[in-house]
Amino acid sequence: MEQDIVLTEVALRDGSHAISHKFTTDQVINVTKALDEANVPYIEVAHGDGLGGSSLQYGRSSTNEMELIEAAVDSCNQSKIAVLMLPGVGTVKELRKAHQLGAQMVRVATHVTEADVARQHLALGKELGMETVGFLMMAHMVSKEKLLEQALEMESSGADSVYIVDSAGAFLPHEVRERIRLLKNNLQVNIGFHGHNNLSLAMANTLVAIEEGATRIDGSIRCLGAGAGNTQTEVLIGVLERMNIKTGVDLYKMIDLSEYVAESILEHPQEITKGSFMLGYAGVYSSFLLHANRAAQKFNVDSRDILVELGKRQVVGGQEDMIVDVASELAKQR
Amino acid sequence: MEQDIVLTEVALRDGSHAISHKFTTDQVINVTKALDEANVPYIEVAHGDGLGGSSLQYGRSSTNEMELIEAAVDSCNQSKIAVLMLPGVGTVKELRKAHQLGAQMVRVATHVTEADVARQHLALGKELGMETVGFLMMAHMVSKEKLLEQALEMESSGADSVYIVDSAGAFLPHEVRERIRLLKNNLQVNIGFHGHNNLSLAMANTLVAIEEGATRIDGSIRCLGAGAGNTQTEVLIGVLERMNIKTGVDLYKMIDLSEYVAESILEHPQEITKGSFMLGYAGVYSSFLLHANRAAQKFNVDSRDILVELGKRQVVGGQEDMIVDVASELAKQR
Repeated sequence: MEQDIVLTEVALRDGSHAISHKFTTDQVINVTKALDEANVPYIEVAHGDGLGGSSLQYGRSSTNEMELIEAAVDSCNQSKIAVLMLPGVGTVKELRKAHQLGAQMVRVATHVTEADVARQHLALGKELGMETVGFLMMAHMVSKEKLLEQALEMESSGADSVYIVDSAGAFLPHEVRERIRLLKNNLQVNIGFHGHNNLSLAMANTLVAIEEGATRIDGSIRCLGAGAGNTQTEVLIGVLERMNIKTGVDLYKMIDLSEYVAESILEHPQEITKGSFMLGYAGVYSSFLLHANRAAQKFNVDSRDILVELGKRQVVGGQEDMIVDVASELAKQR
Repeated sequence: MEQDIVLTEVALRDGSHAISHKFTTDQVINVTKALDEANVPYIEVAHGDGLGGSSLQYGRSSTNEMELIEAAVDSCNQSKIAVLMLPGVGTVKELRKAHQLGAQMVRVATHVTEADVARQHLALGKELGMETVGFLMMAHMVSKEKLLEQALEMESSGADSVYIVDSAGAFLPHEVRERIRLLKNNLQVNIGFHGHNNLSLAMANTLVAIEEGATRIDGSIRCLGAGAGNTQTEVLIGVLERMNIKTGVDLYKMIDLSEYVAESILEHPQEITKGSFMLGYAGVYSSFLLHANRAAQKFNVDSRDILVELGKRQVVGGQEDMIVDVASELAKQR
């Protein structure tokens, strides 16, 4: 089937966050079969934080991700299973295991400034004969020049595609436009975009990315992803059809699957709440929300002011102790 | 307060559809007070189908809209209350009554080809000293040239602003861009845009409209509007702040109100479902959904195919008997 855009459905990985990592094998089989029948090219399956993410820190999976990956592989006639891995969270051991079970694509994800960390795992992916993706997370936190440098690093490490990942759902359309354009003009490999809807801009940003030459696009069916969810896959397919851009995916089958996801998987519909909005508006990690709420209570300041200040200071994951400092400073400033 | 964009909050009118016209006086007072404190310039209050809409055909309001309008007016220190009216559904009698109760803006809404029907009510609005808006509904159904002709008709009838209304949530961003641009280049009055999120494009279309010179923008808090809801007001305010475009509205107060709306008004979160998606994708009236489902069952065809065909044939409200004809034809074609 002719395709202009190659879709990766991420609900069975990113959506893991939205349901506290409680995917069952039956759910994964049902969703994967339907995606395969709808002709979705790639289906990502893993813990929300990638291979090996099941832990006290990131949240335990109720079903072992390897069991889910195996079930997904067995459910597919044509779709390929992708796995996400964050080096340090996952290891070569899990990647080898996922490959052995039949995963055909590895997406190696790093913070947008740490692309060099992906080198080993991209190389292993190539060695195993997998398709490889470099996945630059929290991409809004750096200038477009820095982003290009890191994208080139991913390319030189063997990534077949490099994604701009708007983890916090913080990008505005003109920011996506200039970044995709810059990468498109300077890289030989496929350019991808992964959006989140925290500012109600996932679809807008995705269309801009496509206009500028991105050909690899992520979506989650029924917005089953972290925060306010991702670009809603079935809606994107409909919009692209209206624009005569081919995805090769069956729209009606995806709509039927969306109804199944709403009825049988989502605990509550995905919408833009105070929390998910603030992630996008402040441009911070989702893990900061809970910490900011606690610190706000302790110092009697507005948690939103804390998040905005953390965004301004470009605080990254692992620096959670900064949250109390910021709250304390805000309290003194009053 | 300096403003680049003048917002109208439509949840207390458009949102009436989402809760089967069951707004209570207490809810309207709570929402209006909060919007007034947040400095929202205009608040629309009426039955979902405008003044006089409470009926068997459109759905009965559980509280008389005049009582709600009066309560809203009494709750405002600075915000102005707007009413929507569709000539034929509402009459001059209701408009006079709403004005008497303190409504300061009337938005006269017609199907996009029927602007001349608004003449009398726009004239009465001016005579009463109200601010007047021409509201061109289902605007995606005509060419941009036809839209311009109808917008000029609204302008010549005395509208202070003319809105492009994407009732079905069917517009793509480039379509909005060329239409707003054309109106901006040919009208003297304010240009407005009212979006729906059925294709996840309400925010994208709104930003494009603003880029092209629209200064009057509608939103509904927490997407409390028909179909998948409107451009989410509090999110729009945050996005515009990020773009240094001034609305004069207090973001945090709007976020707090959004939480109230979710907890105390919405029966279920607004999301893009099979039904709301199909409205946007096919570009048809929301009232067609139920009829299409019934006809689909009777003729054993897919209701989605019926809706798409109705969209192609540009069937309008009042032609519901066409739905059975289309279903019957589709059944024969198989």
